[in-house]
Amino acid sequence: MDASSISITSLARIPDLIRTRHPLVHCLTNDVVKNFTANALLSVQAAPAMVEHPAEAGEFAAIADALLTNVGTLVEEQIHAIRAAVETANRNLKPWVLDPVAAGAISLRTGFARELSMMKPAIIRGNASEIMALAGVTAKGRGVDSGNASSEAVDAASKLAKSASCVVMVTGEVDYITDGKALRQCLNGDPLLTRVTGVGCAQGALAAACLAVCESPLEAALASAIIMGIAGEMAAEINQRPGSFQIALLDALDSLDADLIMKRGRIL
Amino acid sequence: MDASSISITSLARIPDLIRTRHPLVHCLTNDVVKNFTANALLSVQAAPAMVEHPAEAGEFAAIADALLTNVGTLVEEQIHAIRAAVETANRNLKPWVLDPVAAGAISLRTGFARELSMMKPAIIRGNASEIMALAGVTAKGRGVDSGNASSEAVDAASKLAKSASCVVMVTGEVDYITDGKALRQCLNGDPLLTRVTGVGCAQGALAAACLAVCESPLEAALASAIIMGIAGEMAAEINQRPGSFQIALLDALDSLDADLIMKRGRIL
Amino acid sequence: MDASSISITSLARIPDLIRTRHPLVHCLTNDVVKNFTANALLSVQAAPAMVEHPAEAGEFAAIADALLTNVGTLVEEQIHAIRAAVETANRNLKPWVLDPVAAGAISLRTGFARELSMMKPAIIRGNASEIMALAGVTAKGRGVDSGNASSEAVDAASKLAKSASCVVMVTGEVDYITDGKALRQCLNGDPLLTRVTGVGCAQGALAAACLAVCESPLEAALASAIIMGIAGEMAAEINQRPGSFQIALLDALDSLDADLIMKRGRIL
Repeated sequence: MDASSISITSLARIPDLIRTRHPLVHCLTNDVVKNFTANALLSVQAAPAMVEHPAEAGEFAAIADALLTNVGTLVEEQIHAIRAAVETANRNLKPWVLDPVAAGAISLRTGFARELSMMKPAIIRGNASEIMALAGVTAKGRGVDSGNASSEAVDAASKLAKSASCVVMVTGEVDYITDGKALRQCLNGDPLLTRVTGVGCAQGALAAACLAVCESPLEAALASAIIMGIAGEMAAEINQRPGSFQIALLDALDSLDADLIMKRGRIL
Repeated sequence: MDASSISITSLARIPDLIRTRHPLVHCLTNDVVKNFTANALLSVQAAPAMVEHPAEAGEFAAIADALLTNVGTLVEEQIHAIRAAVETANRNLKPWVLDPVAAGAISLRTGFARELSMMKPAIIRGNASEIMALAGVTAKGRGVDSGNASSEAVDAASKLAKSASCVVMVTGEVDYITDGKALRQCLNGDPLLTRVTGVGCAQGALAAACLAVCESPLEAALASAIIMGIAGEMAAEINQRPGSFQIALLDALDSLDADLIMKRGRIL
Repeated sequence: MDASSISITSLARIPDLIRTRHPLVHCLTNDVVKNFTANALLSVQAAPAMVEHPAEAGEFAAIADALLTNVGTLVEEQIHAIRAAVETANRNLKPWVLDPVAAGAISLRTGFARELSMMKPAIIRGNASEIMALAGVTAKGRGVDSGNASSEAVDAASKLAKSASCVVMVTGEVDYITDGKALRQCLNGDPLLTRVTGVGCAQGALAAACLAVCESPLEAALASAIIMGIAGEMAAEINQRPGSFQIALLDALDSLDADLIMKRGRIL
């Protein structure tokens, strides 16, 4: 699939494809967001599964349609589980996403995220500071927060996409998505998306679900950006307080369809 | 208590018994659903407690009124904690529930769930594929989703109930509950219950709470089925979107009383 | 700062200080409440981060503005992570909170909470039974529930505050806060706060956020009590059911400002 051929019209098909095929997404993600991630996947009618034991994670990655790896609350056992799952996913040609939460801010996970980035993920999704850190560019991250605007990470994203031979997705006020050649942008979203924990992590899981039904990682990344972005806008129209917004966001993910994407989608 | 003597009238007493006695339910459950499980128990005014360290789990099982074991996100330390808690529960005559999440789909947990099923649980609660797998019948499970209708697992449930000398509860469109002799059904419920993560897991915890106040495991299983089923129907009448439904479900568990069970309960 | 100089007027500044400075709060807390804790911190515009690996926790504690340690679901690796984080926090003069969940009820965590209480926390926050257990007074705790009214723990709190050289906060119907000399009370709150899992744990996290912006631990403890108490009252005015109340509580934490604290705050 050519990058320039990905249009609002092609992206508008994706929610219905997920609803029809119910892709099984194996999530090795952090403790803070497991519940919200599972509910976000259920809202789009994907099937979440969190299988954590190192002796099970590999076996399960062969069954799942796609894999998410997120290093937000790494513990020793999860490091082994992620390695086992990634190896099986690669052997079985199952696409997977890397979410390098807080890479750059802490040494151990920075090293592990770099190791994973070289193991052929289909998509790396992070905020600007995380992507810059993975690309070896000095960044200003502070914990899970980006100290940089997403636009500052465009060059780093392109460099990382080339060196890791994958699609890199920098989420922020504007989402930038690149395979190292084409650069696409998604303008949908709302600042309230940063007031609920795990929205970025859930977007990584959504990208994995999209990988299972899309024609290319670039399309999957762009689809996940537009789906979460529009759902965020719809939720913010319902309620501006973060508790209610979180619930409205899950509802919006459920109600999103081709018409809404055609009407609201803003990509460049 | 004779299976046939369990009526809507006897089940209608259970919510108030839980509200009065606040049974302390020790939950060794999966990482995805701990928060929702605790909130579901608090909504019915049971007292949840998650005590995970192998050196604490045994000690705490002696204090609690009932125990839930759920193998959804097993890690090595939790395997030891579950064994310790089950041994203490049995020694202290505390009833416990086994929820064999994804048994059949993955080897390690299938073996561990079989081991637990032979350690005298009061209730085993699972979806059709999980119960069929535990009973040694070929099933079509895919991760946490059942590939089989609950009705397909009735024979397997009966076989498992006999071999494990416990009550087996197959939840699905219809909930089937058997002690190997009597077979009871609960028809309450709503498809939205499958769109929120952890509803089945919370039902296992609710079954443990019911065990602490009911006269028999059969009554406890049927009570948990009717409580979650009716709460699901009430929540679906409030809101059909999964985010809002989740909140309405917790509210409905709080508002459920004897009158509502008398009016809405549908058991066979 | 003199204890008697802490007034409603001085406390009313705190929500805006948090909103302006976004203190980064490193939370080593229990599995049940990580998501709710992160969302509560985001609602007041603090920045939550849960970094769990023993090899990362120490490094991260030096970056964060404050640290929360909560022993609710201790596992072996978390014990090492908490020790590492506390040592770094102390070395870097970062204030930290100890939440001794269920201390007294179970041996291992009681010993570990005692060890931590002697490592110079700025604030220890617990229910009456937990504080009494830490102070070496016989208590009636049952799991995470206090078997004692908060007023019963006032002497124990004072004793513990002196021996640990810190501020002790007993939360309950009335919140008692003492540095071993002054005793302050916060009367704000609502019984529904006990019907949502993790409110007490989130209050510990909020106390850590307040430590990062307040002039003294006594002021921080009192600020966290008044913020959670008033938010609870506001949420209970919106909805009396526990699911909806939980969401309204996050919304109320977001909307709380100096005017609302001036108008509603009730401290002695």
